[in-house]
Amino acid sequence: MLYEINEKALKLECEGKKIIRLNLGDPDMATPPEIVEAAYASMKAGKTKYSSSYGELKLRQKIAELHCVKEENVVITPGSKWGIFATMYLMMKNGGNVIIPTPYWTAYDLIAKSLGAKVKLLKTEMENEWKVDLNKLEDLIDEETKMIILNTPNNPTSKVMDTKTFDGIVELANQKGVTILSDEVYAAISFVKTKSILDYGRESKHILSNGFSKTFTMTGWRIGYLVADKTFIDNVTKLNQITINNVPVFIQDAALKGLELHKQIASAIKAKYQKRADLATTKLSAAGFKFTKPDAPFYVFPKLDGLDSEKYTLNLLDQGVAVAPGTSFGDYREHFRISLTAPDDQIEAGLDKICEAAKQ
Amino acid sequence: MLYEINEKALKLECEGKKIIRLNLGDPDMATPPEIVEAAYASMKAGKTKYSSSYGELKLRQKIAELHCVKEENVVITPGSKWGIFATMYLMMKNGGNVIIPTPYWTAYDLIAKSLGAKVKLLKTEMENEWKVDLNKLEDLIDEETKMIILNTPNNPTSKVMDTKTFDGIVELANQKGVTILSDEVYAAISFVKTKSILDYGRESKHILSNGFSKTFTMTGWRIGYLVADKTFIDNVTKLNQITINNVPVFIQDAALKGLELHKQIASAIKAKYQKRADLATTKLSAAGFKFTKPDAPFYVFPKLDGLDSEKYTLNLLDQGVAVAPGTSFGDYREHFRISLTAPDDQIEAGLDKICEAAKQ
Repeated sequence: MLYEINEKALKLECEGKKIIRLNLGDPDMATPPEIVEAAYASMKAGKTKYSSSYGELKLRQKIAELHCVKEENVVITPGSKWGIFATMYLMMKNGGNVIIPTPYWTAYDLIAKSLGAKVKLLKTEMENEWKVDLNKLEDLIDEETKMIILNTPNNPTSKVMDTKTFDGIVELANQKGVTILSDEVYAAISFVKTKSILDYGRESKHILSNGFSKTFTMTGWRIGYLVADKTFIDNVTKLNQITINNVPVFIQDAALKGLELHKQIASAIKAKYQKRADLATTKLSAAGFKFTKPDAPFYVFPKLDGLDSEKYTLNLLDQGVAVAPGTSFGDYREHFRISLTAPDDQIEAGLDKICEAAKQ
Repeated sequence: MLYEINEKALKLECEGKKIIRLNLGDPDMATPPEIVEAAYASMKAGKTKYSSSYGELKLRQKIAELHCVKEENVVITPGSKWGIFATMYLMMKNGGNVIIPTPYWTAYDLIAKSLGAKVKLLKTEMENEWKVDLNKLEDLIDEETKMIILNTPNNPTSKVMDTKTFDGIVELANQKGVTILSDEVYAAISFVKTKSILDYGRESKHILSNGFSKTFTMTGWRIGYLVADKTFIDNVTKLNQITINNVPVFIQDAALKGLELHKQIASAIKAKYQKRADLATTKLSAAGFKFTKPDAPFYVFPKLDGLDSEKYTLNLLDQGVAVAPGTSFGDYREHFRISLTAPDDQIEAGLDKICEAAKQ
């Protein structure tokens, strides 16, 4: 229902209705002007031609440096979602199953289903701090299991996976020969320290998915990347050749400028979202919602006992606030997701309406 | 071998070698400055957010107007190649076969193979003006046939399909219930009048693929579109939602600006390429190559009896000229493809080297 809510919100806006949009992880801030200017300079310099399906060498080198890998381990993708689709396409278009801890980003599941792959959901609970139960995970792995998808910090809970659990999952995956696809798109702006799948060895078969959308407020630019072993990167590149061809070079130049300003941009975003998370924590707690405190931007995933979040969400949208029902992230009818990605005054007004609507 | 040649050419250039690149349909001219400025203005206006997976309403409306369809029949794609992949993915990921007249753009075949679909090639010959034999086509259609891919004007021959053949193919497809995917990416800049699949009725199940790359010198921008019935457009949009999400809005705004300047841009491109086609015709004829005269930009597909075009192409690349071997387009070892997409002086020098190398 995540995409339906968004298309409906867009439609209402087109009809002139004012909607406070807390339904997508799309930051309200503008892309930093240095990034826009870098794109413009690149366009004017004629970087508007077909280019390598691997991505631009300079950008790949910079990313490789950031993650202590070689450039041959990096491919540029039009958004991290494309990287995830490409990975699942290459590994599961001929069948197999994927294990996804929930709550999860709905795209994982939709991609798997589109490819005809079987999805095995592994439910985690707020009451247990969203921890993956390693015994349950082991039980789910069978001979057809091709992949486990991890997402830390997590969308929709903003929870960072604890090191012990992460260690356990990697150990299990290595034992069983299952590939981990680790979506770490929120890691660079996490409020707390995070561990990366790459910390478990750069020579493994595991795959890192990352993007520029969240760290650099570049959601609509559609640029991300994968880090993996060379053979896999070559295969993604071959898929790029027959699909998207290349990410526009001027967009890659813009992303490169972002990486050069990494520290200052990431610090500013963290500070802003920490304040918003604190505000949400205060208001939602006072209204009786239960949730784990966000470890990272942009989401809170509150629960209210007995809530039917689909009805609640549609009702809220009619009142001018778009959020996402918990059912979009797995079996979480009593939860819903708030994205703290609107201007501060709208977030405050939105939170007030959310709290009020819960009383009805 | 098309993509291998390109990656090798890029690598040689990175190493400082000067390569005359006649291997890709990537025009040498810059994107018109009005289009670049439109993108910049859009970025600065904050059009850098997630947006609809259908594409922007204004652009869809303009395209719909151009093709006399409704906006619900249009979806924006990151390049026409993505539109072709999406179409084949939706129609053939669960099997079936596709009939492709050759010579063909290699991407069709690679996409089908990647999806596990069966490809039935229908060879056409230069000696018969590249005409599709309708009896042979009928023989190839069976119960598993999901699609016929047409490409007029054609890459690599630059031949426009004659009306009688086009009529015959559509009639046959309609009788047998087979969908035509018509790639008309070169149509707007054709030297001669072309017929579109849409001229056979806007209510059919056939699909038009088109793009901005060729008409507006926007190859590296990655923007194209599909025109089809509403249900199919909705399905492509759902695929967009789990893959590329959306084409950057500022790129869509740039394309919209292109459409506003359609006539003047297309006329200028036609005039330039008509001159180049004339030059190539003169030089190649004098050197003893056989070919059909181009009806459209950008290609010539000459033949030399007894030529091994793969060896010839690699040899030419060592001499600083990149072209594409005929084997990249089907069973055409004696042919090769020249793209007239370099500055005029380079085309002249390239053609001279091509003619010279053929004597060796």
